[in-house]
Amino acid sequence: MDTKIKAAIIGASGYSGEELLRILLKHEAVEVTCITSRQYAGQTIGEVFPRFAESTLKFSAPSIDEIASSSDVAFLALPHGVAAEFAVPLIEKGLKVIDISADFRLKSKEKYKQYYGAEHPAPHLMEMSVYGAPERKREMIKGAQLVACPGCYPTSITLPLHPLLKEGLIESDNIISSSMSGVSGAGRKVAVDYIFPECNESVRPYGVTGHRHLPEIEQELAESAGVEDVKINFIPHLIPVNRGIHSTIIAKLKDGVTPDDIYNCWQKYYKDESFVRVLPKGKLADTKHVTLTNICEIAFACDEHTGNIILSSAIDNLTKGASGQAVQCMNILFDLDETTGL
Amino acid sequence: MDTKIKAAIIGASGYSGEELLRILLKHEAVEVTCITSRQYAGQTIGEVFPRFAESTLKFSAPSIDEIASSSDVAFLALPHGVAAEFAVPLIEKGLKVIDISADFRLKSKEKYKQYYGAEHPAPHLMEMSVYGAPERKREMIKGAQLVACPGCYPTSITLPLHPLLKEGLIESDNIISSSMSGVSGAGRKVAVDYIFPECNESVRPYGVTGHRHLPEIEQELAESAGVEDVKINFIPHLIPVNRGIHSTIIAKLKDGVTPDDIYNCWQKYYKDESFVRVLPKGKLADTKHVTLTNICEIAFACDEHTGNIILSSAIDNLTKGASGQAVQCMNILFDLDETTGL
Amino acid sequence: MDTKIKAAIIGASGYSGEELLRILLKHEAVEVTCITSRQYAGQTIGEVFPRFAESTLKFSAPSIDEIASSSDVAFLALPHGVAAEFAVPLIEKGLKVIDISADFRLKSKEKYKQYYGAEHPAPHLMEMSVYGAPERKREMIKGAQLVACPGCYPTSITLPLHPLLKEGLIESDNIISSSMSGVSGAGRKVAVDYIFPECNESVRPYGVTGHRHLPEIEQELAESAGVEDVKINFIPHLIPVNRGIHSTIIAKLKDGVTPDDIYNCWQKYYKDESFVRVLPKGKLADTKHVTLTNICEIAFACDEHTGNIILSSAIDNLTKGASGQAVQCMNILFDLDETTGL
Amino acid sequence: MDTKIKAAIIGASGYSGEELLRILLKHEAVEVTCITSRQYAGQTIGEVFPRFAESTLKFSAPSIDEIASSSDVAFLALPHGVAAEFAVPLIEKGLKVIDISADFRLKSKEKYKQYYGAEHPAPHLMEMSVYGAPERKREMIKGAQLVACPGCYPTSITLPLHPLLKEGLIESDNIISSSMSGVSGAGRKVAVDYIFPECNESVRPYGVTGHRHLPEIEQELAESAGVEDVKINFIPHLIPVNRGIHSTIIAKLKDGVTPDDIYNCWQKYYKDESFVRVLPKGKLADTKHVTLTNICEIAFACDEHTGNIILSSAIDNLTKGASGQAVQCMNILFDLDETTGL
Repeated sequence: MDTKIKAAIIGASGYSGEELLRILLKHEAVEVTCITSRQYAGQTIGEVFPRFAESTLKFSAPSIDEIASSSDVAFLALPHGVAAEFAVPLIEKGLKVIDISADFRLKSKEKYKQYYGAEHPAPHLMEMSVYGAPERKREMIKGAQLVACPGCYPTSITLPLHPLLKEGLIESDNIISSSMSGVSGAGRKVAVDYIFPECNESVRPYGVTGHRHLPEIEQELAESAGVEDVKINFIPHLIPVNRGIHSTIIAKLKDGVTPDDIYNCWQKYYKDESFVRVLPKGKLADTKHVTLTNICEIAFACDEHTGNIILSSAIDNLTKGASGQAVQCMNILFDLDETTGL
Repeated sequence: MDTKIKAAIIGASGYSGEELLRILLKHEAVEVTCITSRQYAGQTIGEVFPRFAESTLKFSAPSIDEIASSSDVAFLALPHGVAAEFAVPLIEKGLKVIDISADFRLKSKEKYKQYYGAEHPAPHLMEMSVYGAPERKREMIKGAQLVACPGCYPTSITLPLHPLLKEGLIESDNIISSSMSGVSGAGRKVAVDYIFPECNESVRPYGVTGHRHLPEIEQELAESAGVEDVKINFIPHLIPVNRGIHSTIIAKLKDGVTPDDIYNCWQKYYKDESFVRVLPKGKLADTKHVTLTNICEIAFACDEHTGNIILSSAIDNLTKGASGQAVQCMNILFDLDETTGL
Repeated sequence: MDTKIKAAIIGASGYSGEELLRILLKHEAVEVTCITSRQYAGQTIGEVFPRFAESTLKFSAPSIDEIASSSDVAFLALPHGVAAEFAVPLIEKGLKVIDISADFRLKSKEKYKQYYGAEHPAPHLMEMSVYGAPERKREMIKGAQLVACPGCYPTSITLPLHPLLKEGLIESDNIISSSMSGVSGAGRKVAVDYIFPECNESVRPYGVTGHRHLPEIEQELAESAGVEDVKINFIPHLIPVNRGIHSTIIAKLKDGVTPDDIYNCWQKYYKDESFVRVLPKGKLADTKHVTLTNICEIAFACDEHTGNIILSSAIDNLTKGASGQAVQCMNILFDLDETTGL
Repeated sequence: MDTKIKAAIIGASGYSGEELLRILLKHEAVEVTCITSRQYAGQTIGEVFPRFAESTLKFSAPSIDEIASSSDVAFLALPHGVAAEFAVPLIEKGLKVIDISADFRLKSKEKYKQYYGAEHPAPHLMEMSVYGAPERKREMIKGAQLVACPGCYPTSITLPLHPLLKEGLIESDNIISSSMSGVSGAGRKVAVDYIFPECNESVRPYGVTGHRHLPEIEQELAESAGVEDVKINFIPHLIPVNRGIHSTIIAKLKDGVTPDDIYNCWQKYYKDESFVRVLPKGKLADTKHVTLTNICEIAFACDEHTGNIILSSAIDNLTKGASGQAVQCMNILFDLDETTGL
């Protein structure tokens, strides 16, 4: 037992926190030592989440000292802004920090301010943070102290696009992603827009210009394409499912690129990846295939009619889109088999 | 009572037929005289649809003579191909025919063959048929004997786009529609893909290239734009709702076009339309606002970032997307107030 | 227009208020003159409910004088306790008041205090109020000034039981009702228990002892049975649908009572009722048959095995369970055909 | 690898089969050697269930010889009647057989015939079969060759009732269970009643007298109560969720029995059980707490008003209600820790 990784979950009462608990409580190499929640401090885990009633953990109010003394790694499942407040002292105390919030995803302070409406709360940490996309940045994650887990939408969009941009099979201009998310993507947020009768039998777009995930997606796609700047249309929708994101992405195929080229490119990048499933040609992704898994399912169709390619990707927004990917990063950080517990 | 319109519903046991019944049984100027269904012939309406148990109608096997002798107008709620078989003799016998199937929507026999995989079953009727889009073709519908009701997806796509193409505010190239439909859009079809556990907690695209609604949409958009040919990407998705289609449409704004131009253009075309709701700037469409109504709700956002416009439209696929629009056409044909019974 | 009934809706922004709007805005004999909401005062109806964007009504803050001067009848779609505060002055000013809250349903001040945790706010009005169950109290409603609309669960339970208790076909002891309600039954309430991911893919009982609808149900059943006191188990459940209540009721058949006796008894009481549908023997009720209608569907099965009868009833909780029944009462009060607008 | 249990899944393409695959493909002590399906013979598992695309298993047509030569244990995920046809030869060949169908649950040939409408297909095996309820029959399961896994509804009903009947805290007469099941309980059956639009926004009872699970429940409750015969009302309902059964059970408390007595009795029987969760007093069960787990959650409320007790239980119908419990039985049969892989 001594050799288990001691993990703290800061902000454990939201959906990302609950999903971390689901994974880590069964993770053979991890002991969850500390779970914090201001709202539920003092309550047992079973009182808040009956699903975990068999555990004896208790929520505590967050205390840097307590977290630092009890843990090797801290997962921050907090709102942006608040996450940075915890990251700073925990990093100073030598913990590894895996941040599920948006605080350390962007490399540009200007973009942060533009999209989040405030100065970045800890700019000195922006450079040391590593963007936690294992399929692209595995080696960098290994040595990181601060990992910024990708957003849910960005994960579903960058995984299918990265190899195609990297290999120059598609244009990096005029990419469009029409994405659909289950309601847990809004967090365990109590607002009239998210009560059952307002979501059920409804589908609606939101944040169709200037969504906070937009600069993150563009930053990562620009890196994949090796260009300075990429501009896309990212159009999220809310649909009446609990978990799952599907992204339908439209891009311009470069001249002469064939369906086989696409398929082979994906195979080259992903055939040894445990958490990317390239579907056979002719199939399209479906969120129900990946619910409660850490897998991103990707598929495509080339449209001769317009010369565009249509990409289809599906993830569980709370697993590969948040907490599962966070644990995947932790496995890398601590030199475990990347699939442990997932 | 003598002066009521006598209406037959051919193929009344599917979802479009059921929706016609819902509307017509309460329509003050209509008497439903004949409802046919091979499967349910002999059964009362209440045995098949308990919702209508208060009516005394009975299903009969379809007979041209019986339909013709009992009715002024026949609604064809049949699969394509079969609809034409009924349309031919009913037209000959002088009935007005309102076809909800796809048989008379396309103007090109070649496209019909390409997308439906068979020769057109009644090419001589193609020319006489009027495409039943009241907001664009009200005058033509008035004098028609055969009305081809638009498809559900096409209705949700052409209504927001028509004024913008007509007035030249957007490019007609590179239009993309990412559309989401409730499961009733698949009809009352019994297949494993449509049973509850396969649809619930799932979202998936299908028919992303070459969908049968594609040539219909392109035909109508070309007419709006005044060009010979328009090529779009039309990408439908199945989502877990009973009723409703939402289309998110991306197009290139022409230089100098402002949000006010868009709004004013829509106002010009639609402010007197009973069944098109232009949302205030800043709002986006939601299927739940239009469930069980004949209204198409439209909204937009201009994205300075990419220079694109994002359109958002919502209809009830069975009402404005099928049977409600069919009744709207009937009202026009019979010189009633267009909103009667809707 | 002068002869239209002028109706005010007090508390028009909840689900019952919205349902009243849906019905009354199309009611040929009613003009909605005043809709109040503290939260939305000053906003147009379309801003709050895009579904009604075609109306030009505006929410106002509730003012007794304004309501009284503009209206013949006031619908109170308010929380219990608050409703009585409005009922008192509006009754004094001579308006007819139709209360959808629970304030005037109970005849016993003691029960009110026991179940609602406070003294009754207007005991002098308790006696003058008429319980708005048209099928049982039509004549009393005609002359009423204050109508207390039945609760949603009570409506679904008393309609099937009333004739059987009245005619002595079943025992009045040991009746059990296992009822299931859609989430709109909780009102437009913003609480973590009602957000989509907590309700979807979930079914749970609540309030299984001492629910506030219990004394109301028992009061009405005792009246039907002609006994002083009836004690039942009423067990409500929350299920992931928007609208609908289904009640499964188990009772002891009296010796020698046959299925035909049950069926004939229901026919005797309900065959001329517009809003009670007795299903054919062998069928059971389904909420989807009555969604958005004012109908209560009832059915039964006799179980020889145990000697019990199982009753099955379905209503739309917002229509027959609240606002539809309120309008039915209004039609009676104002001597209209009882089905007008429904 | 040599020491792994070799398991065959006969009828692997239904929902119970899929759930067995979900569990067994990750079970550390099991190698799935054979999966059969007439319909999908020759296809890879990934073609039928994309969720398992990472496995290389292939469906084959069922062959007794192939199953027997490749496997130590066979899971029968087949319709009743068909299961027995496989059980007979597999038992003869010495395999252990775990039957998820209903063929070997009843001890009475007469009841089988009465409820299943045919002579029992293998009466000689009825006696040797052990009813696979681990919490009650662990020791008998250990030595069994043929395990009859309990039905989903019976599991949810017998687990909360067993200790209370055994200890005489409640009457065994007049027990009522109002149970609600998700649609996967109907199997992967393609029928109009189970397509999405017929199930969504619907709740309906079915089989309210004479359901096939009734004699099984009564048989097991009689055993718990130590009486010859128990007669109950079992009333199942279909609700729009994928997975989950909730049973609300009403029974008469014996004189003088207190809530503490109930709680303590459950603790006595279940505090060391891994798969029964006794909720704290005041809480009620919710299917979402147990989705995709092998846990049965139980809770209760005593109603002083009527002297009845209300029990609330929740399981995942495909896990504890079918395939999870089957694996729990397999773990017992093969002397593994009972929770392995669950």
